[in-house]
Amino acid sequence: MTGEWMGYAAAALTTVSFLPQAVRTIRTRETHAISLWMYVLFTVGIACWFGYGIVLHSWPMIVSNAITFLLAAIILAFKLRHG
Amino acid sequence: MTGEWMGYAAAALTTVSFLPQAVRTIRTRETHAISLWMYVLFTVGIACWFGYGIVLHSWPMIVSNAITFLLAAIILAFKLRHG
Repeated sequence: MTGEWMGYAAAALTTVSFLPQAVRTIRTRETHAISLWMYVLFTVGIACWFGYGIVLHSWPMIVSNAITFLLAAIILAFKLRHG
Repeated sequence: MTGEWMGYAAAALTTVSFLPQAVRTIRTRETHAISLWMYVLFTVGIACWFGYGIVLHSWPMIVSNAITFLLAAIILAFKLRHG
């Protein structure tokens, strides 16, 4: 399909984007400017995307959301710990 | 479909999650802990999801990604301005 590449680019970019934030948060332990509610809602939301991917038997959804869930959960854990 | 609610919950949660971060960033102008690269990659990625929604003629994708794009772009603009 013509625009299929856009879906792959979208999935790759939004998945990989949480990596620099996770690295920065792990390194600096600086979390004050980060919204707790963002990461609570986002992490639960990504768990739902993961579950929906299982319902649809969609491996790209399952894999990309598993990675994003892990990264978002790390950031959330640091936020909960360091405030 | 059985798991359809999970897709709607996922879309609603991941879209709405950027609202508390945008509000916090606008209010405090505190952006040091936020990763510039996260928001560069994420904003471009969401623009791709938006474009892919147009390709697929999917209104839920178009609407939710338009909202997320706006919120992520606001956070990115504050990060670029306040460092």
